[in-house]
Formats: sequence, C-alpha cells, structure tokens
Amino acid sequence: MTLAETVLARAKAKGATVATAESCTGGMIGAAITDVAGSSAIFDRGYITYSNEAKIEMLGVSADTLAAHGAVSEEIAREMAEGARRAGATLSVSVTGIAGPGGSEFKPEGRVCFGLAQDGAPTRTQTVEFGALGRAVVREKSVEHALRMLIDALT
Amino acid sequence: MTLAETVLARAKAKGATVATAESCTGGMIGAAITDVAGSSAIFDRGYITYSNEAKIEMLGVSADTLAAHGAVSEEIAREMAEGARRAGATLSVSVTGIAGPGGSEFKPEGRVCFGLAQDGAPTRTQTVEFGALGRAVVREKSVEHALRMLIDALT
Repeated sequence: MTLAETVLARAKAKGATVATAESCTGGMIGAAITDVAGSSAIFDRGYITYSNEAKIEMLGVSADTLAAHGAVSEEIAREMAEGARRAGATLSVSVTGIAGPGGSEFKPEGRVCFGLAQDGAPTRTQTVEFGALGRAVVREKSVEHALRMLIDALT
Repeated sequence: MTLAETVLARAKAKGATVATAESCTGGMIGAAITDVAGSSAIFDRGYITYSNEAKIEMLGVSADTLAAHGAVSEEIAREMAEGARRAGATLSVSVTGIAGPGGSEFKPEGRVCFGLAQDGAPTRTQTVEFGALGRAVVREKSVEHALRMLIDALT
C-alpha cells in the first residue's frame, strides 16, 4: 500500500476527512491523495498558498505572525493547518518550507515546517531539516512526511 | 523545456500571473508549475476543489449551475476558472472531469472539461474525451492539456 492509500483506508475506517494547505509542495499532497480511487470519500478540498498573500487571504494566516516569524516557521504551519480545517475537515496537514536553493530569511535550504490540526486535539507542528537535497527531493520527502503525519494521527 | 517551464518563461516575459482551479487533477497542475524554480514570480495560489461544496465555497461556483449541468461540464469549468482568477491573477486554468472508472451523471469515463479565464478576453472552455485510459493517464494528460492552454494564451 502506498502512503496515500493508507491515509485513505484509515480515514475511511474512522469516518474522518482530510484537508491540505500547501506552500512549497504546491499541490503534491492533494495530488497524492486524489491519485487513489475513492479519495472523494475523505478529501474535499486543498489550498495551494504559495505567496504570503495567499496564506493570509485563503487560510486566514496572520500578517503579524508572518512578519514576526516568516513564512517558513512552525507558527505559520500551525495557522495554515488550522485555516485549512476551518471548513469542517476532521484533520488537516500543512507544509511550508524552502525546497530549493536560495533560502531566504536566513533560513537554510531544505528546512520544511509541518502542521497537523485535528478535531478535539491540540495542533501539532514539526520542523524537518532535509538539507540541500535539491528541490525535487525535498518536495517528495515533504509529501511523504506529511502523509505519515496524517497516518499517525489516524492510528 | 517542460511544459511547466514554458509556462513560467512565457508568463514571466509577459509579466503575467497564473492561478489554478483543480478538481480531478487534485493539485497536479499546481505541483507541475511549482516544480520549476522561480515559479513564485508567476504563481501565487491554487484551489483544489474536489467536492461540489468546495467548488461553491472556494470558487463561488453556482449551486444552480451544478444542479443544471453537473460538476463535469464546460459551464462549471468556466465558473471555476473565473473564480480562481478573482484574486487578481492575469489568467487561470480549471479542470473538472471523470478521471477513473465509475463515470457519473451519465457521463463517460475520461471526459474532462477545461476553462481558461484571462484579463481582457472572454473565458474559453473545452471538453476533451480522453477515453477509458485509467485514472493516472487521464490525470497526466489533463495536466498537459491545461498547461498547453496556458501556453497558448500566453503566446
């Protein structure tokens, strides 16, 4: 079973639904989930919020938090995940990171922050330093990490 | 050059920005565009609207249009593309279709409808019958078709 197939199976077994909020992965998590036939039972929507404006307008992320911590931070990952869950999903996962060369805000390439918001439990956040593995690898590893967070929360 | 690289190059040359509204591709177009380094210059956000509710709530698609034509229709592709462009992108592309087995609404597997909304020109829509090629192939061909529509509009 692929990770996305496991997410679908466990979410269906629990009657849970999932939403996504993606920055550096740009839609890859949504693509992975919807690659599985029957995913409409657990997946309703996802937000691709590549710019700061999109994070603010689509997810209700705070401009103050962005100014204080930058887009690649656990604080923003938290607000993204919570924003994505607002429409009613049981749980949501968010990703914001520096996938490729050109780390900004004095943060290193390969740093990716994740958020997981869920019904009836505190939001969790994590930072993973994937290192300078290149854009494609960091994005792929970020998708896997996000799907594993969903699986953990559904177990 | 990949199709996504061509989209980025042409959009940058024109000073254009792009937004996406995806149903059956589930984030794959956003993923393809953001796979290219520097894509933040032209891509700000994307909407993954897998359910009817998401299309209505995130893109302002009309419940009446959904009831009259179904989600897989040029009418809905039009409203999705126009909804995605509302935040200010120069152009937007939308995809809604029946990627895998189990066509509903008496519509065949492999039917995919596309919309292209742009600043200063009428919205265009298209329907492509990819046929029963299987979920993964129909999705991949839909991404290519959507990227080609963007390239055409930028040429």
